[in-house]
Amino acid sequence: MRMHPLDLIEKKRDGYRHTKEELDFLVAKFNEGEMAKAQMAAWLMAVYLRGLDLTETAYLTRAMVESGLKVDLKAIDEPKVDKHSTGGVGDKTTLVVVPLAAAVGIKVPKLSGGALGHTGGTLDKLKSIPGFRTTLALDEFIAQVLDVGAAIGSQTGELAPADKKIYALRDKTATVSSIPLIVASILSKKAAAGSRKIVIDVKTGTGAFMPTLAESKELAATLVAVGNEIDLNVECIISDMNQPLGLAIGNSVEVKEAVDCLGGGGPPDLRELSIEIATRMVLLGGLADGRESALAKVESALATGKALSKFQEIVLAQGGETAFLTDASSLKRAPGHFVIKAEDDGWLAVDNCRALGEAATLVSGRIHDEGEIDLGAGLVMKLKAGAEVVKGSPLVDIFYTDELWLPQAKELVSKALTVVPEKPDDRALIYDWRS
Amino acid sequence: MRMHPLDLIEKKRDGYRHTKEELDFLVAKFNEGEMAKAQMAAWLMAVYLRGLDLTETAYLTRAMVESGLKVDLKAIDEPKVDKHSTGGVGDKTTLVVVPLAAAVGIKVPKLSGGALGHTGGTLDKLKSIPGFRTTLALDEFIAQVLDVGAAIGSQTGELAPADKKIYALRDKTATVSSIPLIVASILSKKAAAGSRKIVIDVKTGTGAFMPTLAESKELAATLVAVGNEIDLNVECIISDMNQPLGLAIGNSVEVKEAVDCLGGGGPPDLRELSIEIATRMVLLGGLADGRESALAKVESALATGKALSKFQEIVLAQGGETAFLTDASSLKRAPGHFVIKAEDDGWLAVDNCRALGEAATLVSGRIHDEGEIDLGAGLVMKLKAGAEVVKGSPLVDIFYTDELWLPQAKELVSKALTVVPEKPDDRALIYDWRS
Repeated sequence: MRMHPLDLIEKKRDGYRHTKEELDFLVAKFNEGEMAKAQMAAWLMAVYLRGLDLTETAYLTRAMVESGLKVDLKAIDEPKVDKHSTGGVGDKTTLVVVPLAAAVGIKVPKLSGGALGHTGGTLDKLKSIPGFRTTLALDEFIAQVLDVGAAIGSQTGELAPADKKIYALRDKTATVSSIPLIVASILSKKAAAGSRKIVIDVKTGTGAFMPTLAESKELAATLVAVGNEIDLNVECIISDMNQPLGLAIGNSVEVKEAVDCLGGGGPPDLRELSIEIATRMVLLGGLADGRESALAKVESALATGKALSKFQEIVLAQGGETAFLTDASSLKRAPGHFVIKAEDDGWLAVDNCRALGEAATLVSGRIHDEGEIDLGAGLVMKLKAGAEVVKGSPLVDIFYTDELWLPQAKELVSKALTVVPEKPDDRALIYDWRS
Repeated sequence: MRMHPLDLIEKKRDGYRHTKEELDFLVAKFNEGEMAKAQMAAWLMAVYLRGLDLTETAYLTRAMVESGLKVDLKAIDEPKVDKHSTGGVGDKTTLVVVPLAAAVGIKVPKLSGGALGHTGGTLDKLKSIPGFRTTLALDEFIAQVLDVGAAIGSQTGELAPADKKIYALRDKTATVSSIPLIVASILSKKAAAGSRKIVIDVKTGTGAFMPTLAESKELAATLVAVGNEIDLNVECIISDMNQPLGLAIGNSVEVKEAVDCLGGGGPPDLRELSIEIATRMVLLGGLADGRESALAKVESALATGKALSKFQEIVLAQGGETAFLTDASSLKRAPGHFVIKAEDDGWLAVDNCRALGEAATLVSGRIHDEGEIDLGAGLVMKLKAGAEVVKGSPLVDIFYTDELWLPQAKELVSKALTVVPEKPDDRALIYDWRS
């Protein structure tokens, strides 16, 4: 019998399971432009509300992998471990973790996607380093991993193109926050990029795409289980995103903070999470017998400056100037500066981390402007949540070029931050992990 | 705050209620082409799975009425009563009921839509009468109702155009069989057509769009309740569609059967249901004190030939030739004739009424052909379900022009009919009513 999209929409609408053939058909037809967007949209909403089980999610993932080019990384010897984050505000861990794990001896062929929603993208951050090239040809990318131990390139549209098309539609049809669809999207790109081992940082909280811990745990468990089905060894960390990671939110400001961290300083939460991710990569890559020894190697790479040197090697290999490593003023910085101050005595609370991310994307021009992103714009918090403040003390620096968006950015920051009369309980940074 | 389709899709996806402003916004934006089909498709699937309550359904209905022209029927005095069927196989009641109710004194301004899915359309049936015009200008339509008491015209696309666009999308996205969407679609067209009182025949069974009695009852109750909210007095009959109504399925073959019925003969089920609908129209129009008296008037209109004369007046007023009223051979009849015969002794059972409708649309060329419908093609059952048959006795006549589709039509009929070894229980014709 010939398959028809209508029958498959109906099947999922009524809560039945799809076969491999059905999911292959849907993805291929849509990818080839032979299934109407409206039909895919209806199917996506049916999936959102009815779900996909692990087997269906694995079939969907594989079908999306098969929609495009598959990178062959066999020229690169083990241990190869990839790293991914589900996205958060001020999440610059890639900039720290890639050189850190590489400094210990893990090969890290890292392909990154663009910025999503209220969160920034690694590629934009790297572009704030003068001369840095993120577009690498595949052979160049592989050669750099062989030579330096790591490369950070931009994901080509040729990998899992069906995912790209489906994601664009999900973004318009309120079907983004579906766990099976998120899992298929993340893992299809990683599998197509040739990854076989990966540590995924699942962000949870008001600044993440998954606001609740329960959902984040389900996402992590699903990532691991579907990974298993498609021959991808996935390990997940579930980390807090109820406040920005570190203090900086933007592009050049985050690069500066990452360099601080690689130099042995920087905000403690960024340092702790980066060490945790790198330690798990070292373990997953088999470069240590146990956690203690993996941790010791990672901490030593930071303490001895090896991690920072590795970052320098990566920057040089990708054409970047390295002056910023010793002189942060060589990074772009937007000329305008506004300081948000405390309006009360008390303790700082972040009520809405997403709003801080939105404020940063707003001043960088990414939301409203078709043109270039202002890579020197952004926010820098003066304090983490829970810190004691007095009325009038500075809470956030806003760096901007175009004054037009400043009032709205200020409003978003005010919405995000409050000064509360009692010290809020400390939150954990790392909630859980799944493997 | 500005509304955005994405927020409204999300709201329904998460099971929240829409406001009037939100539904006005969605319908207007989509009708004006300012909301993507994919977004409307996602919203429709969310509605399919999450539902709309009565108030939301009434708002949606009103918004669709406001999307186009509204017919003003105030030139026509009371009693004015409209008639609608949710669609079934062999459902030619409009051809009988409109003249029958008009013969008693009800004004019937009836606008019909096209054929839907496996069911036929009143307009195609009427087109099999040589010369009959279904496209009437509005003033011409009103003048005919004033003069003759009834007119049957084709619904213009200017009435509830948003419904037309939304229906086309539902048809492609497996969101047709949603009670609130069905109700809004039916009632918006009727309200836009100027109806204030209407009897709706809700079909239930394997040949209907609602297969189960429970769903059909819910549909009827929702039609009545939403009608109440929008100042439309709705009365529903729930009637059986587990076998064709009467014996004929097609266009000219159904016209012939309707004429037989108007002449006092015809199949008993068609007669009974037509009398029931007309009686309720007479009661709803206030032309009788009680059911007994209404029924007596309707039966008298049939017995005295007044109903048939009224049909003749309608046909003449709309330019049709009337020879077929006394000589059925003046109607088109396809030249090919195949007889399906019983393969066993036993009793006739209809397992799948829809398949009979599909066979009829197939031989008429409506499904596969872009061109003209073959109005003379169709099926005529020799017997109703439950009749005793002997092996070799004829069950169905298939009339066709193009042999190409005959094998598939025969297969559909074989799928629809079985001869069973024990007499099946009789089914009720009319299950329930709601007002």
